Amino acid sequence: MKIILDAMGSDNYPVPDVAGAVQAAREWGDEIILVGRKEIVRNELAKHDAANLPITIVHAPEVIEMHEHSNAVKRKKNASIRVGMRMLKQGQVDAFVSAGNTTAVLASAIFDLKRIRGIRRPALGSIYPVANGPVFVLDNGATADCKPEYLLQFVQMGIAYVEHVWGISNPRVGLLANGEEPDKGSMLVRDTYTVLAESGINFCGNVEPKEITRNAADIVVTDGFTGNVMLKTTEAVASFLARYLKQELTGGTLNKIGLALMVPGILAMLPGLALMLPSLRRIAGRLDYAEYGGALLMGVDGVVIVGHGRSNSKAIKNAIGQARKAVQGDVMQAIRKRVAKEQK
Amino acid sequence: MKIILDAMGSDNYPVPDVAGAVQAAREWGDEIILVGRKEIVRNELAKHDAANLPITIVHAPEVIEMHEHSNAVKRKKNASIRVGMRMLKQGQVDAFVSAGNTTAVLASAIFDLKRIRGIRRPALGSIYPVANGPVFVLDNGATADCKPEYLLQFVQMGIAYVEHVWGISNPRVGLLANGEEPDKGSMLVRDTYTVLAESGINFCGNVEPKEITRNAADIVVTDGFTGNVMLKTTEAVASFLARYLKQELTGGTLNKIGLALMVPGILAMLPGLALMLPSLRRIAGRLDYAEYGGALLMGVDGVVIVGHGRSNSKAIKNAIGQARKAVQGDVMQAIRKRVAKEQK
Repeated sequence: MKIILDAMGSDNYPVPDVAGAVQAAREWGDEIILVGRKEIVRNELAKHDAANLPITIVHAPEVIEMHEHSNAVKRKKNASIRVGMRMLKQGQVDAFVSAGNTTAVLASAIFDLKRIRGIRRPALGSIYPVANGPVFVLDNGATADCKPEYLLQFVQMGIAYVEHVWGISNPRVGLLANGEEPDKGSMLVRDTYTVLAESGINFCGNVEPKEITRNAADIVVTDGFTGNVMLKTTEAVASFLARYLKQELTGGTLNKIGLALMVPGILAMLPGLALMLPSLRRIAGRLDYAEYGGALLMGVDGVVIVGHGRSNSKAIKNAIGQARKAVQGDVMQAIRKRVAKEQK
Repeated sequence: MKIILDAMGSDNYPVPDVAGAVQAAREWGDEIILVGRKEIVRNELAKHDAANLPITIVHAPEVIEMHEHSNAVKRKKNASIRVGMRMLKQGQVDAFVSAGNTTAVLASAIFDLKRIRGIRRPALGSIYPVANGPVFVLDNGATADCKPEYLLQFVQMGIAYVEHVWGISNPRVGLLANGEEPDKGSMLVRDTYTVLAESGINFCGNVEPKEITRNAADIVVTDGFTGNVMLKTTEAVASFLARYLKQELTGGTLNKIGLALMVPGILAMLPGLALMLPSLRRIAGRLDYAEYGGALLMGVDGVVIVGHGRSNSKAIKNAIGQARKAVQGDVMQAIRKRVAKEQK
């Protein structure tokens, strides 16, 4: 398998990007192509012990920065995002991974890769980070304004993914809403309810956020605006609570004295805490988006993974891991088949 | 001040409802009228030492249950919600508080109270529970499908509230979006951006959930569907994390041994923990919706507070407290003035 990685992607490119590629090549042995400014990427790669790893560099003289408007995509024909996308289109690689400007990756995917024939709009699909079991949520931000037909196609793409990558057949599909009854939600949600109920999928009706955290569906569909707000709210709440706990527990004189008084207790707890380490690690992992890597851009004609701008090397490695899974599960072919079937 | 409380409101009515009314009457001395089935309410009230408190009972023979469709409102003319709403309309009381079926409260408010002249749609406004400072978010679920003009009116109502109840003049207003740039978001968000930017309010542009938690605006406006999903996601994430921490830390053999080994340490920590209690209480309070009480239904012609179905007595008491503040700040008059000014 050959995966091309945008070396100029993350907020701190090329450091985490190149490091993540090295980790992925070492762990899985896949061929990784780094696309970006050759000098910069080569210098960064030289910092790693990567001489024996299957990593090569493809030069892309331009960079689309995080703050740039998506129209930079048209102007910068030789940006790393566009060079990578074209190589994917030409079949030179199996997947493209970028933690760069999401809007630019989306625009380039639609422009250079094109949509899969029959697909109306693309969707970003990813695992919801706060749930008892895996829940695949889409759209997380590709298509802000949706129609019921788009959401039905998102569901079909989600089923293709969950069946072929997670191995769950006939997955349960929920529609994100603010109440369980069919007449709850916006006009879009109510209309989509009818379309999904009649579509022959395993539809379990409207789901609220608390049901998502309880794994009440394998797939949850929503428009890209609501999905993005839900995901960003999830991140914001988790990070606020962590910040708040830390600040409350370590700020103020009473707390400082309290903490000092607790030192003997904390020391006495160490043997017990050591045994609990695996659990504590699991908790941290659960909240760490680096574990998930990124989102799959679905509906375009190739495997594209969009990583988080704040990605560290582990997140980049895991984004490459997600690309591998999508390629191994042949998700593209599964989506094409489902869409063709729908259109008959 | 006279406040009428739906005694048949919360999931566990009349227990928390009556207890909350007793607490409120004791703390603030306001006259509280309990509306509901007389026998039931009288028996519940008799369990409290309330003989000297200014609490009276008004009989309402019918109850609209949580699961009922909002059309029960038309059928059940003598439900507690409708009797309470009519007394508010007739000026016999200053505010109505209910932790009952939200859709029914909304329908009855529009039907019995009517909208304030000039107001296009109602909105539910409440404080966002996870932020460094108070942020007033609306709409939290009254109007799922919105237009830019509705959102502008929501903002005007929010300003009336924040100025008159919180005493913040010329408050900063943010528009909930999934990106800071003016071209981010759904069509509704982009169109609303233009309307708000030209409206003369103190508009600070698009805000994402993480900026809300950082108190980047005093008021955040969004449509009722997105606002409700955001609020429910916030609750779901906080409650998932609490559940998950507990389960991870107390489940499994290793953790059990670990906890046992930690007992001496925990005992040694007690004096320190005691000093930290105020902070720990603040943390718990921060996440406890009971601290906030409920949402103000804005745009209808009277002070209506909609409480959480899961309200305990403290939440009911605080919902009554919110009603008091809205009455004392004369929010209704402030809204009427703002709307009249807009329409000139």
